Amino acid sequence: MHIFLEKRCCSIHTGIINAKEFFMRIIDVLVVGGGASGLQAAITTKTTYPDKEVVLVRKEQQVLIPCGIPYIFGTLSDSSKDILPDKLLTSVGVEIVVDELIEIKVKEHQCVLASNEIIQYTKLILALGSIPTKPAWLKGADLENVFTIPKNKEYLDQVLVALSSLKEVMVIGAGFIGVEVSDELNKKGYKVTLLEIEKTILNRAFDDEFGVLAQEHLQERGVRVITGKGVSEIKGKNGKVSEVVLSTGELLKADAVILSMGYAPNTQVAKEAGIELNDFGFIKTCEYMRVLPCTIDIVAVGDCAEKRDFVTRKIDRTMLASTACAEARTAGMNLYSLSPCKPFTGTIAIYATAIGSHAFGTAGITEAKAMQENFSVICGSFTGMDTHPGNLEHSHKQMVKLIVASDCGMILGAEVYGGASTGELTNAIGFLIQNRVTVKQLLTMQIGTQPLLTGSPAAYPLVKAAEVIVKKMH
Amino acid sequence: MHIFLEKRCCSIHTGIINAKEFFMRIIDVLVVGGGASGLQAAITTKTTYPDKEVVLVRKEQQVLIPCGIPYIFGTLSDSSKDILPDKLLTSVGVEIVVDELIEIKVKEHQCVLASNEIIQYTKLILALGSIPTKPAWLKGADLENVFTIPKNKEYLDQVLVALSSLKEVMVIGAGFIGVEVSDELNKKGYKVTLLEIEKTILNRAFDDEFGVLAQEHLQERGVRVITGKGVSEIKGKNGKVSEVVLSTGELLKADAVILSMGYAPNTQVAKEAGIELNDFGFIKTCEYMRVLPCTIDIVAVGDCAEKRDFVTRKIDRTMLASTACAEARTAGMNLYSLSPCKPFTGTIAIYATAIGSHAFGTAGITEAKAMQENFSVICGSFTGMDTHPGNLEHSHKQMVKLIVASDCGMILGAEVYGGASTGELTNAIGFLIQNRVTVKQLLTMQIGTQPLLTGSPAAYPLVKAAEVIVKKMH
Repeated sequence: MHIFLEKRCCSIHTGIINAKEFFMRIIDVLVVGGGASGLQAAITTKTTYPDKEVVLVRKEQQVLIPCGIPYIFGTLSDSSKDILPDKLLTSVGVEIVVDELIEIKVKEHQCVLASNEIIQYTKLILALGSIPTKPAWLKGADLENVFTIPKNKEYLDQVLVALSSLKEVMVIGAGFIGVEVSDELNKKGYKVTLLEIEKTILNRAFDDEFGVLAQEHLQERGVRVITGKGVSEIKGKNGKVSEVVLSTGELLKADAVILSMGYAPNTQVAKEAGIELNDFGFIKTCEYMRVLPCTIDIVAVGDCAEKRDFVTRKIDRTMLASTACAEARTAGMNLYSLSPCKPFTGTIAIYATAIGSHAFGTAGITEAKAMQENFSVICGSFTGMDTHPGNLEHSHKQMVKLIVASDCGMILGAEVYGGASTGELTNAIGFLIQNRVTVKQLLTMQIGTQPLLTGSPAAYPLVKAAEVIVKKMH
Repeated sequence: MHIFLEKRCCSIHTGIINAKEFFMRIIDVLVVGGGASGLQAAITTKTTYPDKEVVLVRKEQQVLIPCGIPYIFGTLSDSSKDILPDKLLTSVGVEIVVDELIEIKVKEHQCVLASNEIIQYTKLILALGSIPTKPAWLKGADLENVFTIPKNKEYLDQVLVALSSLKEVMVIGAGFIGVEVSDELNKKGYKVTLLEIEKTILNRAFDDEFGVLAQEHLQERGVRVITGKGVSEIKGKNGKVSEVVLSTGELLKADAVILSMGYAPNTQVAKEAGIELNDFGFIKTCEYMRVLPCTIDIVAVGDCAEKRDFVTRKIDRTMLASTACAEARTAGMNLYSLSPCKPFTGTIAIYATAIGSHAFGTAGITEAKAMQENFSVICGSFTGMDTHPGNLEHSHKQMVKLIVASDCGMILGAEVYGGASTGELTNAIGFLIQNRVTVKQLLTMQIGTQPLLTGSPAAYPLVKAAEVIVKKMH
């Protein structure tokens, strides 16, 4: 199935091949991108179609675990503790090529790499990822000590070195990355200010009552949080950050600025190849992740691929490793043979984060989003404990809020506050949403409870929140 | 709706009424039993039908949280820390009567209580619970210092007092109660031996590899575990336990014996009323929990009610507070008005337990059970970490095993080993089973991941176990 034009040089130990020694090569499946979605797409493809030769091309020698990146600023001692192991790929027979895609020739089924190698593919999986937003309007964004958080080990290692001689850090944008990086830098001893233009932090994922709680926990731990104000300029002295000007005109001293103002899909190379992008710059895809409208031989997954919200059915900008992996598995399984029972039916946006021993999880849409989109919803919240009796040593308060469609009872969203079990409880609710379970069906469902591990059977917050809603429905 | 024949004496503060002052009373809904299922049935009924008068009759002044009972032997200082709060009932308007049911007159719609009060009901909910098994064949079972674990505060308080002057305890039967009580007594300083006739502990809920792991953890903590041997006799000296004779003839010294050999439904009073019981002594019920075949006005829920296994469709003997509560919600919601979308479709048996910082969860059927029932299954296991990267401080190994029908791919069961998130991860899988999700559908589902709270998106054990199975299906 493949032709070698030049001699191959392969390190058996790592499975990494130096691509510069090739000129042209024919393979079955080419995956471009080494992040979560590229990795998962390659693994699923190879395990679903073991006879196919699967090659993954990526720029990075080593790939960071994406959601672990904020933790290299505190909990982990450095970025080397946050590496996606190559053996996940090599152990199933995926070949890794460290190189860079510079051109896609759609008609010819070819990709041109920076090393001048051309790879001829039968199927192409684009997992191009995303790049941090650095707004063009933001004066001072190019000063020394203004950083972003890309998924790039070399760059982030330089950030860590630069930060080590600085003290006051302003983090701009309080999404998950902004919150986690702030908390980690604070843990490491930096004086951290987190700036958010919306009135609460984590605003896209949580309703205000949860955002306020998260803000309180961050503040208790020493992070200064400013909400309802944006940045208008970064001022410098000798080319380095010295102050941040807020939208109100206030001046705040800062040695460093971290921009966590969102990410844009990394799709320039796809655009240049004539592949269609949507208004937000994502590669248009169908529910099997095939790119629209041109071909059945190219799929796009992860941060570069178009997303449709599971609940609102609108095009959405959510970027999540977990969603990316689900898309990647869908693309991989359907690559050579479509199965109508395995489409990707929309993004649920299941997130969680932790601030100290307190955790926050969310799945589906918030109440605020539901109102904005004109859903008629009934919401119910219940606060209990995450163990029972609730007086055990590691007990944590557990609050669950459900957002339910008032006409059909379908669960559209949930928010959770709690302890160590919050992430998996959020996943449990995510499964309910994905299976279109109604709030009344939930009340007849069985949920295991155990004193040390969960809330009590008679006061399990998820079920109690459902009861609150059903009572309001009468 | 109700007639008072005598003056009512009501404590407004607790909502507890002394029933002895009544002679006859007419109410809408009578719930008999104060455990998890009675409590939940009363709450659901009252919140679903707020105009109905709901009275709960129970024997106990104070009700223990059932799954918390093992923890009164160690973690909790005494049983008063494990009380179901009456305000769960009184706050929604359920009235509590402390009394005992002695006769049900089905035709007359009447219940006779020990105080000679007669309650005339429109609807009757039987939540009679279960009583510990004390095998008639077991010689010495009535010796002093042979105990069982009923849901009875007064009895268990006496057990705690009796144990306080003893040292060596033999726990017979290594189901969840036996394992948890052993671990707690060991924690408290007792010399504990746990005896199990099957070759592994927790045998009904877990396949051998998990049972062996649980046994290892118990032993590391100091519990002596003996498997593959039963008890044949308990020997005494001066009327008190002195030795236990094993099925092999071995003699083991013991000051106390705790029998955790299972529970039987507490259904004598129902049987005497002509209500039909199944071969195991449970009250026969339909999927709306109505008792069969006689009436639409009596329902049975919890340990006393017939169970059908969700997967095998066979009559089952599982007793679980969580299942009981789901039955109770089903019965309560459907009590006056059947809704065809809310039947109870069978017991999934979702359990979890913890041994120190290690936790075990199970949902649905085991591989062994599947084989025994003639299901054709494919199993897959994956061991990863419950955080990512897996080198964080509180990381715990996480192993997930899935049991999947080889023809249709439906998930029939799962077993989980891990840390603090094990209970909720097990619940998440429980939702998959209840929604009849196939292993291939699972691979396209979204699962939120977060470094401190869950496994990694690319090595999430539940998904990796599914991948193992799908690969075997090819």
